[in-house]
This record gives sequence, structure tokens and C-alpha cells, in this order.
Amino acid sequence: MPRYAFLIEYDGAPFSGWQRQDKHPSVQEAIEKALAKIMPENPLITGAGRTDAGVHARGQVAHVDLPTAWDPYRLQQAVNHHLRPKPVSILQAVAAEDDFHARFSARSRRYLYRLLSRKAPTALEFGRVWQTRNRLDIEAMRAGAAQLIGKHDFTTFRSVNCQAQSPVKTLDRLDIEAVGEEIHIHVEARSFLHNQVRSFAGTLEKVGSGGWQPDDVGAALRAADRAACGPVAPSCGLYLMDVGYPIPLFSRG
Amino acid sequence: MPRYAFLIEYDGAPFSGWQRQDKHPSVQEAIEKALAKIMPENPLITGAGRTDAGVHARGQVAHVDLPTAWDPYRLQQAVNHHLRPKPVSILQAVAAEDDFHARFSARSRRYLYRLLSRKAPTALEFGRVWQTRNRLDIEAMRAGAAQLIGKHDFTTFRSVNCQAQSPVKTLDRLDIEAVGEEIHIHVEARSFLHNQVRSFAGTLEKVGSGGWQPDDVGAALRAADRAACGPVAPSCGLYLMDVGYPIPLFSRG
Repeated sequence: MPRYAFLIEYDGAPFSGWQRQDKHPSVQEAIEKALAKIMPENPLITGAGRTDAGVHARGQVAHVDLPTAWDPYRLQQAVNHHLRPKPVSILQAVAAEDDFHARFSARSRRYLYRLLSRKAPTALEFGRVWQTRNRLDIEAMRAGAAQLIGKHDFTTFRSVNCQAQSPVKTLDRLDIEAVGEEIHIHVEARSFLHNQVRSFAGTLEKVGSGGWQPDDVGAALRAADRAACGPVAPSCGLYLMDVGYPIPLFSRG
Repeated sequence: MPRYAFLIEYDGAPFSGWQRQDKHPSVQEAIEKALAKIMPENPLITGAGRTDAGVHARGQVAHVDLPTAWDPYRLQQAVNHHLRPKPVSILQAVAAEDDFHARFSARSRRYLYRLLSRKAPTALEFGRVWQTRNRLDIEAMRAGAAQLIGKHDFTTFRSVNCQAQSPVKTLDRLDIEAVGEEIHIHVEARSFLHNQVRSFAGTLEKVGSGGWQPDDVGAALRAADRAACGPVAPSCGLYLMDVGYPIPLFSRG
């Protein structure tokens, strides 16, 4: 059966997350229902990562095996047509090798966390950012973030529900950028623990707002204790931006 | 009576526009209703510009006379409290001189028009951009835009409902910027005719997509005929960004 890969954008707000669940709408279900409209075999899709309820994506990846060959562009258009008006969009569809696996072939994941630091409520970015009323010291946040880079036991920054076999991960990038009134946290690793990025974001907001010193981040990491973590930042600020593979699949502009 | 000025952000989608109307929700009405919650005199506000239905603002300005003096920050907080959950936010409130007038004291208005050029539907920017499926030639758009700069009779780019006394305006800036998959049109003038920015945006999209040549923009301008205009771009891509006064009122970050 020919295999296809999708590059996917979605607004996480109306969904219980990526993964199909009974009784709750999911992004996976939305795409599978759209596929079922154009072929009777009800093909199932496999995503690169299971984003939580409310988490957005600009670059989720999934693969699917179809009963017949499709022109990838026509496939993309047909799925998008049946996704409407749900806020899920197939940005690209490409033919993939039989041994390509959206999750297991992935070599990197990149996330963006958007923090809006101001007192007045946001009228235009509601549900797209985490708004904190605290002023944030970006240099303090950078000093705290530097202590997380590299290979560590990230037990402190891992949800108690995390199903990963090991808490040891290698964090390749944790950059903090000022963008107008927002602070953008850019994070990249081969893979992440459950709630790891939101645990970083909540902890770094604590550092930026002065509740923690930058060195407290290293101490929390070394504690290897979930109770040592700062607050977990809300899902609405988190975006899955990119999933990297050994051979690039998509031609992104 | 002490006069105050507000710097205002809003999502235009749920409103029939800035101006109060019978039977249709407006931004002006939303703010006046919030003010009425904190003082019994029902003060009325005066905006710098009447944005149309669906047009957003990041920097609308309005003034209001209040029966008693207020601490500006407490006033801002109280109005924002009563605006919730409407997507309208007072970004700053300041005390203003008695002769300050949000509309008549203004010396410049700056707008942003956001065009998203791609085939796949947008999941995250719906209602925030005008999506065109055409590929846009930004250099052609710039060449067309250059013909609009300066003092002209802008009858071609003016709604038939426009109430301005003269169609002659001076366009100080019309810059076109590529931002990822978006094209941003930045426009500035002392004042604008009704639908002028959206008429520019629709016309320049025609140039970018190859339906018009850049020189057709100058010919349309010289025709001084509404029928010579390209299509009027939808309101959802338009943002009132800034209103300029002889003495800056607000301290924007």
C-alpha cells in the first residue's frame, strides 16, 4: 500500500489533543474522518508526536497508508476540503518510502512557546499565547535556560503521567528571543518527555519574573524530583513547529 | 471635566465596526457600556477613526470626558475588567489636555494590511489575514505601490459611501514587506478616504498575482474613477496600528 506523509497545521483550542480518544474531538480523528470521506477503507494515521489538549502545531507530521495511489497534491486538496471548517490544514502531502514512520523516523522536534508579558488583556492573541502580567528579565531567563542545555535526567521537568522509558534526554537548543511584547522560547531535541516544554516555560517565567534565581533552575534539574519543578505553563502558548527527518520530506517556504 | 485618552486594541470580527449603531454591536458601545458600569453618567467616547466591520486595531485612540478625576491606571483596569470577555482591551489610559481631540488632533494614521499567500487553508490565522491562493510577485507590488505615494486625487480608491469633503489626500508611506508566507502592506497618511487601504490592498494583490501590470495602478489612479479600482480587499486583513499626535500621548514599548 502506498504511504504518504502529511505536514499539518492546527489550532489546538477546540481539540482534546492530537490523539484519537473516545467522546472527545481530536486532531487525528478530524483528519481520519476527512480521509474516510474520500475512500471507504477508513485509513488510520500515525503522528510524529502526541500534542496535548490546546497545543497548536505549525509543523506536525503524520503518515498514512492508502489502498490506492494518489497524486499528493490532489490528496492534500481533498483532505483539506473535508476538514473544513475545522482549524486543521494539510500544508503539504508527499509520497513517502514504505519504511518511513512519522514517529520512529524522526530525528528532532522543535517547539515554540509564546509568552506575552503585559498588564492589559490581549484582544488579538487570546488562546495563542500565555499572558503573564509579570515583567520578565530576559537575561535572567537566558541564564536559567543555559543550565538545561545538554544531556540530563529531566525527571524534574516530566509529567507524572509521562510514559517514556527513560527520563534522560539531550536538549539541543533552548533560545529565548524578545519579539515586541512577547518572549519566544525556542526548544529543540531529538525527543521530549511529557510536559517537558511547558515545564521549562513555566519555570523560566518564574526566573524572568524574579521568583527564582537563574541558578535555581540548575538546582531543580539536579534534584531530579518532579516536586522541584516550577509551574507548568498552559498549553495555549505551545506550538509544535517542526519535526526533522534524516531526509527532508517537505519543501517549506 | 477631566479628559482622558485611551490606546485601544481590538479584534474586529464580532463587531459591526468602531462606531455605535442601533441593533449591532460596536467597539465604541462596548467601551461605553464598560464605562457606564463604573460611573452613572454614561460618558460617551470619541474615536480617532471609524474602522469598518471586521477591521482590527492595535492602536486605536479615543478620548472621553469624565465627571470626576481618575487615576489613569485604575481607570484602565476598571474599564478592562468590565470589557471582559469581549476582545477589546485598553492598552493605556492617560490624562489629556482639554483641547485634545482623538480625531481632530491626529496628524497621522498608520495601517497594516496582512495578506497570506498560500494554497493550504490557514488554521491559525483565520480571520486575521486575507488569504489569497495566488502566488504574489512582491517586486511588481512594490512597483505598483510606488505610483500611489504622494498627493493625489484618490477617487479611484474611495468607497462610494465616503463622506470626506475632498478626494485629495497625501499618502506618505506604502511599504510592502515579506514576512514568512505573508505579505504586509504598511500604509501611512494624515488621513484616509473610506475603504482606501482595502482598495489599495485589493489592487496590489491583482498586481502581485499578475492580473494587472504595475503601470495599471498609475492609470487607475489617473482615471479618478471608482470603476477603475481593483477589488476591495476583505476587512479581516486590516489593522489600525497607530494614530500620531503632535505630542506623543502614550509610552509604547
